[in-house]
Amino acid sequence: MDNKRYIGVDLGGTNIKCGVVTKEGEILYQKSIPTKADRPADEVIADMVLVIRSVIKDSGTDMSDVVSIGVGSPGAIDSEKGEVIKAGNLSWKYVKLKKKLEDALEKPAYVANDANVAALAEALFGAGKGKKSTLLMTLGTGLGAGYVLDGKIQSGAHGVGAELGHMIIVPEGKECTCGNKGCFERYTSASALIAWGVETMENDPNSSIAKRAGSDKENVTAKLMIDLAKEGDEVALKIFDDYTRYLAYGIVNLINIIDPEVIILGGGVSRAGDFLLDSIKPKVASRVFCKEAPYSEILISKMGNDAGVVGAAMLS
Amino acid sequence: MDNKRYIGVDLGGTNIKCGVVTKEGEILYQKSIPTKADRPADEVIADMVLVIRSVIKDSGTDMSDVVSIGVGSPGAIDSEKGEVIKAGNLSWKYVKLKKKLEDALEKPAYVANDANVAALAEALFGAGKGKKSTLLMTLGTGLGAGYVLDGKIQSGAHGVGAELGHMIIVPEGKECTCGNKGCFERYTSASALIAWGVETMENDPNSSIAKRAGSDKENVTAKLMIDLAKEGDEVALKIFDDYTRYLAYGIVNLINIIDPEVIILGGGVSRAGDFLLDSIKPKVASRVFCKEAPYSEILISKMGNDAGVVGAAMLS
Repeated sequence: MDNKRYIGVDLGGTNIKCGVVTKEGEILYQKSIPTKADRPADEVIADMVLVIRSVIKDSGTDMSDVVSIGVGSPGAIDSEKGEVIKAGNLSWKYVKLKKKLEDALEKPAYVANDANVAALAEALFGAGKGKKSTLLMTLGTGLGAGYVLDGKIQSGAHGVGAELGHMIIVPEGKECTCGNKGCFERYTSASALIAWGVETMENDPNSSIAKRAGSDKENVTAKLMIDLAKEGDEVALKIFDDYTRYLAYGIVNLINIIDPEVIILGGGVSRAGDFLLDSIKPKVASRVFCKEAPYSEILISKMGNDAGVVGAAMLS
Repeated sequence: MDNKRYIGVDLGGTNIKCGVVTKEGEILYQKSIPTKADRPADEVIADMVLVIRSVIKDSGTDMSDVVSIGVGSPGAIDSEKGEVIKAGNLSWKYVKLKKKLEDALEKPAYVANDANVAALAEALFGAGKGKKSTLLMTLGTGLGAGYVLDGKIQSGAHGVGAELGHMIIVPEGKECTCGNKGCFERYTSASALIAWGVETMENDPNSSIAKRAGSDKENVTAKLMIDLAKEGDEVALKIFDDYTRYLAYGIVNLINIIDPEVIILGGGVSRAGDFLLDSIKPKVASRVFCKEAPYSEILISKMGNDAGVVGAAMLS
């Protein structure tokens, strides 16, 4: 068996997860520590170095077998320089993460956007395994995305590619946290689905959403909205239908622009599985430009919470 | 000097242009014949073979120096199979162009979408020369586009990539010839600019557009609209401002999704040059997701009418 080991770090706003990974994408050992994101970047990075050393030691890995360290970070990343340009949750700006890790650990280090990293894991070991090109879209708090072509993350000429969540889908539409209007994630993230539910509940206190949520906003989750739609509740079905129509607009655009072999849906909403796919697919089919040729297959993500660590470990 | 020659064919709805091209993208000799597009595909292809033989002979090129034949064709192309899946103007369906040319000429033949081919020419010898990635958008009757990364056309997993003209930019917006609604080219092609002009003229017979066009629809051209805007005519300026706002939505999406090193504007409207760029650039700057990093440079195309022949010749 191959003794080579790859360290993957999933840097989140809440936790830093760190794992020792094999070439085949298996996590042999992993550990999680709190990020305490409000600290200066150097303190967070010092803890990151400690947890990396600790997983290497505790897993009994020989330092000489460690090939590289990869980090998936939120925000806009310059992967070539290994620099975190900005990362909202962490309030980092222009942090030279690659250099700091290489100085501390004397191993090659790589940094990429967390959604890109998850897409890499999905492309190599998940629903995109064996496919030429994989586009992953995670429908969570925001909409993260990554595009992997021939096993390589495509993050564009300036490292800002695959920010699909900020594709303008409605001219001068809903205001987005990014400062722009009408961004895709305002209509298609889990938060968007929840926002529609909350709006409906507030407008109609007798709606089934209000009943099931006990009229408490906090109880309106993506899961509740999907459950109600699955049960055939008309109001929830209408919202879900609108939600998947906006998703279809974006998916059609990605098919027409990039034409990946597979488009994979991940994140909280993707747990709706076939119910989600059955609602999206006909909407895509009727809108895609070239109906004469096969187009991107739409699938549900297979990698769970390990995608961040595994994908980061595979950076090179 | 290198004796190797590359045959480039620009297959259009009106004419078939064919040229003998050097590795450096220089056209040594070229000829154009009418397509007579209403004939069966095999007759058009037979004429294409004749004109290829004729440019080789008339230019004094030795058949043994001819490396390959490339064709830029309108429509959806399966470049791997060398098949024209559909080509609106030509009413071709599933035409095995590569095979037919190879059988007739005993040279390797390649087929790609005409906009992709133009993007290749622009990337290799035009405004994208020396850049890692080039996205060309031609603002003409429709909106054609091609994306070239590391010198290679990116046409996606099923050959339908870079159909940017059919990115949905306005949900359930203007009807498009493709059967979908709200497509980018309905708002940003030269035809879209003209349609706005005609609409305005019909609503306001005293508008300067009506005056300059002699109230004749046929006289409302993209050039007239741009000229009037340049002269400071308020109505034309407003239309032009709307037009470039929609263009900016699409350009922002392409930056956020693909992040090419350069985005090049070609086609009729691009002749407006700096006047066009000056109107687009601030609209893009205020909407692009990652304002902290440099993003795609927006440029005007440098290749003229030769892009089709030169780009086709460079297919491999």
